[in-house]
Amino acid sequence: MDHDIAWPGSVRPGGRTARVRESVLEVAGDLLADRGFAHLDLTEVAAGAGVGKTTVYRRWRTPAGLVADLLVEMADQSLPRADTGSLLEDLTANARLVAKTLTDTRQSNLFRAVIAAATCDDAAAAALHAFYDTRLTEWAPCVEDAVTRGEAPAGTDSRAVLSAVSAPLYYRLLASGDPIDVDIADRSARAATLATIAGTFVTTADAVSSVP
Amino acid sequence: MDHDIAWPGSVRPGGRTARVRESVLEVAGDLLADRGFAHLDLTEVAAGAGVGKTTVYRRWRTPAGLVADLLVEMADQSLPRADTGSLLEDLTANARLVAKTLTDTRQSNLFRAVIAAATCDDAAAAALHAFYDTRLTEWAPCVEDAVTRGEAPAGTDSRAVLSAVSAPLYYRLLASGDPIDVDIADRSARAATLATIAGTFVTTADAVSSVP
Repeated sequence: MDHDIAWPGSVRPGGRTARVRESVLEVAGDLLADRGFAHLDLTEVAAGAGVGKTTVYRRWRTPAGLVADLLVEMADQSLPRADTGSLLEDLTANARLVAKTLTDTRQSNLFRAVIAAATCDDAAAAALHAFYDTRLTEWAPCVEDAVTRGEAPAGTDSRAVLSAVSAPLYYRLLASGDPIDVDIADRSARAATLATIAGTFVTTADAVSSVP
Repeated sequence: MDHDIAWPGSVRPGGRTARVRESVLEVAGDLLADRGFAHLDLTEVAAGAGVGKTTVYRRWRTPAGLVADLLVEMADQSLPRADTGSLLEDLTANARLVAKTLTDTRQSNLFRAVIAAATCDDAAAAALHAFYDTRLTEWAPCVEDAVTRGEAPAGTDSRAVLSAVSAPLYYRLLASGDPIDVDIADRSARAATLATIAGTFVTTADAVSSVP
Protein backbone atom coordinates (compact mmCIF):
# COMPACT_ATOMS: atom_id res chain seq x y z
CA MET A 1 0.00 0.00 0.00
CA ASP A 2 1.49 3.35 -0.98
CA HIS A 3 2.26 6.00 1.61
CA ASP A 4 0.20 8.64 -0.24
CA ILE A 5 -2.89 7.11 1.29
CA ALA A 6 -3.25 9.95 3.79
CA TRP A 7 -5.19 12.00 1.21
CA PRO A 8 -6.47 14.65 1.79
CA GLY A 9 -3.41 16.30 3.23
CA SER A 10 -0.86 14.23 1.35
CA VAL A 11 2.70 14.87 2.47
CA ARG A 12 3.64 15.06 -1.21
CA PRO A 13 1.20 17.53 -2.82
CA GLY A 14 2.70 17.05 -6.30
CA GLY A 15 2.94 13.28 -5.86
CA ARG A 16 0.97 10.35 -7.15
CA THR A 17 -2.03 11.04 -4.92
CA ALA A 18 -2.35 14.55 -6.29
CA ARG A 19 -2.04 13.28 -9.86
CA VAL A 20 -4.66 10.59 -9.28
CA ARG A 21 -7.02 13.17 -7.81
CA GLU A 22 -6.47 15.54 -10.72
CA SER A 23 -7.21 12.82 -13.29
CA VAL A 24 -10.25 11.50 -11.45
CA LEU A 25 -11.79 14.95 -10.93
CA GLU A 26 -11.20 15.91 -14.55
CA VAL A 27 -13.00 12.80 -15.79
CA ALA A 28 -15.76 13.25 -13.20
CA GLY A 29 -16.23 16.87 -14.33
CA ASP A 30 -16.38 15.82 -17.98
CA LEU A 31 -18.98 13.13 -17.27
CA LEU A 32 -21.06 15.47 -15.09
CA ALA A 33 -21.01 18.20 -17.73
CA ASP A 34 -21.90 15.72 -20.47
CA ARG A 35 -24.61 13.65 -18.83
CA GLY A 36 -25.46 14.98 -15.37
CA PHE A 37 -25.31 13.64 -11.83
CA ALA A 38 -27.81 10.81 -12.34
CA HIS A 39 -25.40 9.05 -14.71
CA LEU A 40 -22.17 9.64 -12.76
CA ASP A 41 -20.65 6.20 -12.22
CA LEU A 42 -17.51 5.63 -10.16
CA THR A 43 -16.44 2.60 -12.18
CA GLU A 44 -16.64 4.64 -15.39
CA VAL A 45 -14.72 7.50 -13.76
CA ALA A 46 -11.97 5.08 -12.69
CA ALA A 47 -11.74 3.62 -16.20
CA GLY A 48 -11.67 7.08 -17.81
CA ALA A 49 -8.95 8.26 -15.45
CA GLY A 50 -6.87 5.09 -15.79
CA VAL A 51 -7.08 4.54 -12.05
CA GLY A 52 -7.99 1.39 -10.17
CA LYS A 53 -11.69 1.07 -9.35
CA THR A 54 -10.84 0.19 -5.75
CA THR A 55 -8.87 3.42 -5.34
CA VAL A 56 -11.79 5.52 -6.56
CA TYR A 57 -14.35 3.73 -4.38
CA ARG A 58 -12.07 3.86 -1.35
CA ARG A 59 -11.29 7.58 -1.63
CA TRP A 60 -14.54 9.07 -2.93
CA ARG A 61 -17.05 6.34 -1.96
CA THR A 62 -20.12 7.77 -3.79
CA PRO A 63 -21.02 10.04 -6.73
CA ALA A 64 -21.84 12.73 -4.15
CA GLY A 65 -18.36 12.26 -2.66
CA LEU A 66 -16.88 12.96 -6.09
CA VAL A 67 -19.08 16.05 -6.54
CA ALA A 68 -18.03 17.31 -3.11
CA ASP A 69 -14.33 16.98 -3.87
CA LEU A 70 -14.78 18.49 -7.33
CA LEU A 71 -16.42 21.54 -5.72
CA VAL A 72 -13.50 21.84 -3.30
CA GLU A 73 -11.12 21.85 -6.29
CA MET A 74 -13.32 24.36 -8.17
CA ALA A 75 -13.27 26.70 -5.17
CA ASP A 76 -9.47 26.28 -4.82
CA GLN A 77 -8.91 27.11 -8.47
CA SER A 78 -11.32 30.05 -8.66
CA LEU A 79 -9.85 33.48 -9.16
CA PRO A 80 -9.15 35.72 -6.15
CA ARG A 81 -11.26 38.81 -5.49
CA ALA A 82 -10.76 41.98 -7.51
CA ASP A 83 -9.19 44.94 -5.74
CA THR A 84 -9.64 48.01 -7.95
CA GLY A 85 -10.31 50.55 -5.22
CA SER A 86 -13.89 51.06 -6.44
CA LEU A 87 -16.98 49.13 -5.32
CA LEU A 88 -18.63 49.38 -8.75
CA GLU A 89 -15.51 48.13 -10.51
CA ASP A 90 -14.95 45.29 -8.04
CA LEU A 91 -18.58 44.14 -8.32
CA THR A 92 -18.44 44.47 -12.10
CA ALA A 93 -15.36 42.21 -12.12
CA ASN A 94 -17.27 39.71 -9.99
CA ALA A 95 -20.35 39.79 -12.23
CA ARG A 96 -18.26 39.40 -15.38
CA LEU A 97 -16.38 36.45 -13.89
CA VAL A 98 -19.65 34.71 -13.02
CA ALA A 99 -21.10 35.53 -16.46
CA LYS A 100 -18.00 34.14 -18.17
CA THR A 101 -18.21 30.93 -16.13
CA LEU A 102 -21.94 30.46 -16.75
CA THR A 103 -21.63 31.04 -20.51
CA ASP A 104 -18.74 28.59 -20.96
CA THR A 105 -20.32 25.36 -22.24
CA ARG A 106 -18.46 22.91 -20.02
CA GLN A 107 -18.56 25.13 -16.93
CA SER A 108 -22.25 25.99 -17.23
CA ASN A 109 -23.16 22.32 -17.74
CA LEU A 110 -21.02 21.44 -14.76
CA PHE A 111 -22.71 24.04 -12.55
CA ARG A 112 -26.15 22.90 -13.70
CA ALA A 113 -25.18 19.31 -12.88
CA VAL A 114 -23.89 20.03 -9.37
CA ILE A 115 -26.84 22.30 -8.61
CA ALA A 116 -29.22 19.55 -9.80
CA ALA A 117 -27.29 17.05 -7.66
CA ALA A 118 -27.75 19.31 -4.64
CA THR A 119 -31.54 19.24 -5.09
CA CYS A 120 -31.66 15.48 -4.50
CA ASP A 121 -28.57 14.65 -2.41
CA ASP A 122 -27.81 16.15 1.02
CA ALA A 123 -24.05 15.57 0.79
CA ALA A 124 -23.92 17.28 -2.61
CA ALA A 125 -26.01 20.14 -1.21
CA ALA A 126 -23.61 20.61 1.71
CA ALA A 127 -20.66 20.65 -0.69
CA LEU A 128 -22.41 23.16 -2.96
CA HIS A 129 -23.20 25.48 -0.07
CA ALA A 130 -19.56 25.23 1.06
CA PHE A 131 -18.43 26.19 -2.46
CA TYR A 132 -20.58 29.35 -2.45
CA ASP A 133 -19.55 30.12 1.11
CA THR A 134 -15.90 30.03 -0.01
CA ARG A 135 -16.59 32.30 -2.99
CA LEU A 136 -18.76 34.77 -1.04
CA THR A 137 -16.10 34.92 1.69
CA GLU A 138 -13.28 35.44 -0.85
CA TRP A 139 -15.07 38.46 -2.37
CA ALA A 140 -16.46 39.94 0.87
CA PRO A 141 -13.46 42.31 1.33
CA CYS A 142 -14.58 44.20 -1.80
CA VAL A 143 -17.60 45.36 0.18
CA GLU A 144 -15.74 45.68 3.49
CA ASP A 145 -13.08 47.87 1.86
CA ALA A 146 -15.83 50.05 0.32
CA VAL A 147 -17.18 50.57 3.84
CA THR A 148 -13.68 51.50 5.07
CA ARG A 149 -13.29 53.94 2.16
CA GLY A 150 -16.66 55.50 3.02
CA GLU A 151 -18.23 54.41 -0.29
CA ALA A 152 -20.77 52.17 1.45
CA PRO A 153 -22.47 52.59 4.84
CA ALA A 154 -21.25 50.80 7.95
CA GLY A 155 -23.15 47.60 8.68
CA THR A 156 -23.47 46.61 5.02
CA ASP A 157 -23.98 42.84 4.67
CA SER A 158 -21.28 41.91 2.16
CA ARG A 159 -22.71 38.45 1.58
CA ALA A 160 -26.10 39.91 0.64
CA VAL A 161 -24.44 42.37 -1.75
CA LEU A 162 -22.41 39.67 -3.51
CA SER A 163 -25.44 37.36 -3.69
CA ALA A 164 -27.36 40.20 -5.35
CA VAL A 165 -24.59 40.60 -7.94
CA SER A 166 -24.49 37.02 -9.20
CA ALA A 167 -28.11 35.99 -8.51
CA PRO A 168 -29.61 37.46 -11.73
CA LEU A 169 -27.06 35.47 -13.76
CA TYR A 170 -27.92 32.20 -12.01
CA TYR A 171 -31.64 33.01 -12.37
CA ARG A 172 -31.13 33.16 -16.15
CA LEU A 173 -29.11 29.92 -16.20
CA LEU A 174 -31.48 27.91 -14.02
CA ALA A 175 -34.94 29.47 -14.19
CA SER A 176 -35.90 31.83 -17.00
CA GLY A 177 -33.39 30.70 -19.64
CA ASP A 178 -32.93 34.35 -20.66
CA PRO A 179 -29.49 34.97 -22.20
CA ILE A 180 -26.47 35.87 -20.06
CA ASP A 181 -24.04 38.46 -21.41
CA VAL A 182 -21.63 41.19 -20.31
CA ASP A 183 -24.38 43.82 -20.47
CA ILE A 184 -26.55 41.89 -18.00
CA ALA A 185 -23.51 41.33 -15.77
CA ASP A 186 -22.67 45.03 -15.76
CA ARG A 187 -26.28 46.02 -14.99
CA SER A 188 -26.38 43.54 -12.13
CA ALA A 189 -23.18 44.98 -10.63
CA ARG A 190 -24.50 48.52 -11.09
CA ALA A 191 -27.86 47.70 -9.47
CA ALA A 192 -26.15 46.07 -6.49
CA THR A 193 -23.76 49.02 -6.13
CA LEU A 194 -26.58 51.59 -6.18
CA ALA A 195 -28.55 49.63 -3.59
CA THR A 196 -25.47 49.17 -1.42
CA ILE A 197 -24.63 52.89 -1.49
CA ALA A 198 -28.26 53.68 -0.58
CA GLY A 199 -28.01 51.41 2.47
CA THR A 200 -30.35 48.65 1.27
CA PHE A 201 -28.01 45.93 2.54
CA VAL A 202 -27.29 47.47 5.94
CA THR A 203 -28.33 44.94 8.55
CA THR A 204 -28.34 47.06 11.72
CA ALA A 205 -31.90 47.41 12.96
CA ASP A 206 -32.19 51.20 12.82
CA ALA A 207 -30.83 51.67 9.28
CA VAL A 208 -33.42 52.21 6.58
CA SER A 209 -32.50 52.92 2.98
CA SER A 210 -34.37 55.68 1.23
CA VAL A 211 -36.32 55.28 -1.97
CA PRO A 212 -37.26 58.62 -3.56
CA MET B 1 -63.44 5.67 -26.19
CA ASP B 2 -64.76 8.69 -24.33
CA HIS B 3 -65.38 11.99 -26.10
CA ASP B 4 -63.16 13.91 -23.64
CA ILE B 5 -60.17 12.67 -25.60
CA ALA B 6 -59.62 16.08 -27.20
CA TRP B 7 -57.61 17.24 -24.17
CA PRO B 8 -56.12 19.85 -24.02
CA GLY B 9 -59.05 22.05 -24.93
CA SER B 10 -61.76 19.75 -23.64
CA VAL B 11 -65.27 20.92 -24.52
CA ARG B 12 -66.23 20.22 -20.90
CA PRO B 13 -63.67 22.01 -18.69
CA GLY B 14 -65.19 20.72 -15.46
CA GLY B 15 -65.71 17.22 -16.87
CA ARG B 16 -63.96 13.92 -16.45
CA THR B 17 -60.93 15.00 -18.45
CA ALA B 18 -60.33 17.96 -16.16
CA ARG B 19 -60.77 15.77 -13.06
CA VAL B 20 -58.34 13.17 -14.38
CA ARG B 21 -55.79 15.89 -15.14
CA GLU B 22 -56.20 17.41 -11.68
CA SER B 23 -55.66 14.06 -9.95
CA VAL B 24 -52.71 13.09 -12.11
CA LEU B 25 -50.94 16.44 -11.69
CA GLU B 26 -51.49 16.41 -7.94
CA VAL B 27 -49.92 12.98 -7.60
CA ALA B 28 -47.11 13.92 -10.00
CA GLY B 29 -46.41 17.05 -7.95
CA ASP B 30 -46.35 15.03 -4.71
CA LEU B 31 -43.94 12.48 -6.15
CA LEU B 32 -41.70 15.18 -7.63
CA ALA B 33 -41.58 17.09 -4.35
CA ASP B 34 -40.88 13.89 -2.40
CA ARG B 35 -38.30 12.17 -4.56
CA GLY B 36 -37.35 14.32 -7.54
CA PHE B 37 -37.55 14.01 -11.32
CA ALA B 38 -35.26 10.97 -11.61
CA HIS B 39 -37.81 8.83 -9.77
CA LEU B 40 -40.97 10.13 -11.47
CA ASP B 41 -42.71 7.07 -12.91
CA LEU B 42 -45.89 7.30 -15.03
CA THR B 43 -47.17 3.92 -13.88
CA GLU B 44 -46.86 4.99 -10.24
CA VAL B 45 -48.56 8.32 -11.00
CA ALA B 46 -51.46 6.48 -12.68
CA ALA B 47 -51.83 4.13 -9.70
CA GLY B 48 -51.68 7.01 -7.20
CA ALA B 49 -54.27 8.99 -9.13
CA GLY B 50 -56.57 6.00 -9.63
CA VAL B 51 -56.37 6.45 -13.38
CA GLY B 52 -55.66 3.85 -16.05
CA LYS B 53 -51.99 3.54 -16.97
CA THR B 54 -52.87 3.73 -20.67
CA THR B 55 -54.60 7.07 -20.17
CA VAL B 56 -51.56 8.57 -18.46
CA TYR B 57 -49.10 7.27 -21.05
CA ARG B 58 -51.35 8.36 -23.94
CA ARG B 59 -51.86 11.92 -22.64
CA TRP B 60 -48.54 12.78 -21.01
CA ARG B 61 -46.21 10.25 -22.72
CA THR B 62 -43.07 10.91 -20.60
CA PRO B 63 -42.04 12.22 -17.16
CA ALA B 64 -41.01 15.46 -18.92
CA GLY B 65 -44.50 15.66 -20.45
CA LEU B 66 -45.96 15.49 -16.94
CA VAL B 67 -43.56 18.17 -15.70
CA ALA B 68 -44.48 20.40 -18.64
CA ASP B 69 -48.22 20.12 -17.96
CA LEU B 70 -47.69 20.60 -14.23
CA LEU B 71 -45.83 23.85 -14.97
CA VAL B 72 -48.71 25.00 -17.19
CA GLU B 73 -51.09 24.38 -14.29
CA MET B 74 -48.74 26.12 -11.81
CA ALA B 75 -48.61 29.19 -14.07
CA ASP B 76 -52.42 29.14 -14.47
CA GLN B 77 -52.95 28.98 -10.72
CA SER B 78 -50.35 31.60 -9.76
CA LEU B 79 -51.57 34.86 -8.34
CA PRO B 80 -52.09 37.86 -10.65
CA ARG B 81 -49.77 40.86 -10.48
CA ALA B 82 -50.06 43.39 -7.66
CA ASP B 83 -51.41 46.84 -8.55
CA THR B 84 -50.75 49.14 -5.59
CA GLY B 85 -49.90 52.28 -7.54
CA SER B 86 -46.28 52.20 -6.27
CA LEU B 87 -43.33 50.43 -7.90
CA LEU B 88 -41.70 49.63 -4.55
CA GLU B 89 -44.92 48.18 -3.15
CA ASP B 90 -45.65 46.16 -6.30
CA LEU B 91 -42.12 44.71 -6.38
CA THR B 92 -42.27 44.01 -2.64
CA ALA B 93 -45.50 42.06 -3.21
CA ASN B 94 -43.76 40.10 -5.96
CA ALA B 95 -40.69 39.36 -3.82
CA ARG B 96 -42.83 38.27 -0.86
CA LEU B 97 -44.91 35.98 -3.08
CA VAL B 98 -41.76 34.32 -4.42
CA ALA B 99 -40.29 34.07 -0.89
CA LYS B 100 -43.50 32.49 0.41
CA THR B 101 -43.49 29.95 -2.41
CA LEU B 102 -39.82 29.06 -1.98
CA THR B 103 -40.12 28.62 1.79
CA ASP B 104 -43.17 26.35 1.58
CA THR B 105 -41.82 22.81 1.94
CA ARG B 106 -43.84 21.17 -0.84
CA GLN B 107 -43.56 24.12 -3.22
CA SER B 108 -39.82 24.61 -2.73
CA ASN B 109 -39.17 20.89 -3.24
CA LEU B 110 -41.34 21.01 -6.33
CA PHE B 111 -39.45 23.98 -7.78
CA ARG B 112 -36.11 22.33 -7.02
CA ALA B 113 -37.31 19.17 -8.76
CA VAL B 114 -38.52 20.90 -11.94
CA ILE B 115 -35.40 23.08 -12.08
CA ALA B 116 -33.25 19.96 -11.71
CA ALA B 117 -35.32 18.26 -14.43
CA ALA B 118 -34.68 21.21 -16.73
CA THR B 119 -30.90 20.77 -16.35
CA CYS B 120 -31.04 17.31 -17.94
CA ASP B 121 -34.16 17.28 -20.15
CA ASP B 122 -34.78 19.71 -23.02
CA ALA B 123 -38.58 19.35 -22.91
CA ALA B 124 -38.62 20.09 -19.19
CA ALA B 125 -36.31 23.08 -19.79
CA ALA B 126 -38.65 24.48 -22.46
CA ALA B 127 -41.61 24.07 -20.09
CA LEU B 128 -39.71 25.73 -17.24
CA HIS B 129 -38.74 28.71 -19.41
CA ALA B 130 -42.38 29.01 -20.53
CA PHE B 131 -43.46 29.07 -16.87
CA TYR B 132 -41.10 31.94 -16.04
CA ASP B 133 -42.05 33.72 -19.26
CA THR B 134 -45.70 33.59 -18.16
CA ARG B 135 -44.88 34.92 -14.71
CA LEU B 136 -42.53 37.66 -15.92
CA THR B 137 -45.15 38.73 -18.48
CA GLU B 138 -47.93 38.75 -15.87
CA TRP B 139 -45.95 41.11 -13.60
CA ALA B 140 -44.44 43.30 -16.34
CA PRO B 141 -47.26 45.91 -16.12
CA CYS B 142 -46.05 46.81 -12.60
CA VAL B 143 -42.93 48.25 -14.22
CA GLU B 144 -44.73 49.59 -17.30
CA ASP B 145 -47.24 51.43 -15.11
CA ALA B 146 -44.36 52.90 -13.07
CA VAL B 147 -42.94 54.28 -16.32
CA THR B 148 -46.35 55.74 -17.22
CA ARG B 149 -46.60 57.33 -13.77
CA GLY B 150 -43.12 58.81 -14.20
CA GLU B 151 -41.67 56.76 -11.33
CA ALA B 152 -39.27 54.90 -13.62
CA PRO B 153 -37.51 56.10 -16.79
CA ALA B 154 -38.82 55.32 -20.26
CA GLY B 155 -37.15 52.32 -21.85
CA THR B 156 -36.94 50.35 -18.59
CA ASP B 157 -36.70 46.59 -19.30
CA SER B 158 -39.50 45.21 -17.09
CA ARG B 159 -38.30 41.63 -17.48
CA ALA B 160 -34.82 42.53 -16.22
CA VAL B 161 -36.34 44.37 -13.25
CA LEU B 162 -38.57 41.45 -12.27
CA SER B 163 -35.71 38.97 -12.74
CA ALA B 164 -33.60 41.09 -10.38
CA VAL B 165 -36.37 41.00 -7.75
CA SER B 166 -36.72 37.23 -7.50
CA ALA B 167 -33.19 36.17 -8.47
CA PRO B 168 -31.61 36.60 -5.00
CA LEU B 169 -34.31 34.32 -3.55
CA TYR B 170 -33.67 31.60 -6.14
CA TYR B 171 -29.92 32.00 -5.60
CA ARG B 172 -30.44 31.18 -1.93
CA LEU B 173 -32.69 28.20 -2.73
CA LEU B 174 -30.44 26.68 -5.39
CA ALA B 175 -26.89 27.88 -4.85
CA SER B 176 -25.80 29.33 -1.49
CA GLY B 177 -28.40 27.72 0.75
CA ASP B 178 -28.61 30.97 2.72
CA PRO B 179 -32.02 31.40 4.41
CA ILE B 180 -34.94 33.06 2.61
CA ASP B 181 -37.21 35.34 4.63
CA VAL B 182 -39.40 38.43 4.34
CA ASP B 183 -36.49 40.73 5.17
CA ILE B 184 -34.43 39.38 2.26
CA ALA B 185 -37.47 39.65 -0.02
CA ASP B 186 -38.04 43.27 0.99
CA ARG B 187 -34.38 44.17 0.49
CA SER B 188 -34.41 42.57 -2.93
CA ALA B 189 -37.49 44.57 -3.98
CA ARG B 190 -35.94 47.76 -2.58
CA ALA B 191 -32.61 47.18 -4.38
CA ALA B 192 -34.41 46.53 -7.70
CA THR B 193 -36.58 49.63 -7.21
CA LEU B 194 -33.59 51.88 -6.50
CA ALA B 195 -31.74 50.55 -9.55
CA THR B 196 -34.83 50.93 -11.72
CA ILE B 197 -35.39 54.53 -10.66
CA ALA B 198 -31.71 55.28 -11.34
CA GLY B 199 -32.10 53.94 -14.88
CA THR B 200 -29.96 50.81 -14.50
CA PHE B 201 -32.47 48.70 -16.44
CA VAL B 202 -33.04 51.16 -19.29
CA THR B 203 -32.15 49.36 -22.50
CA THR B 204 -31.96 52.25 -24.96
CA ALA B 205 -28.38 52.66 -26.09
CA ASP B 206 -27.83 56.23 -24.91
CA ALA B 207 -29.16 55.80 -21.37
CA VAL B 208 -26.57 55.44 -18.63
CA SER B 209 -27.47 55.19 -14.95
CA SER B 210 -25.44 57.27 -12.55
CA VAL B 211 -23.57 55.89 -9.60
CA PRO B 212 -22.46 58.62 -7.19
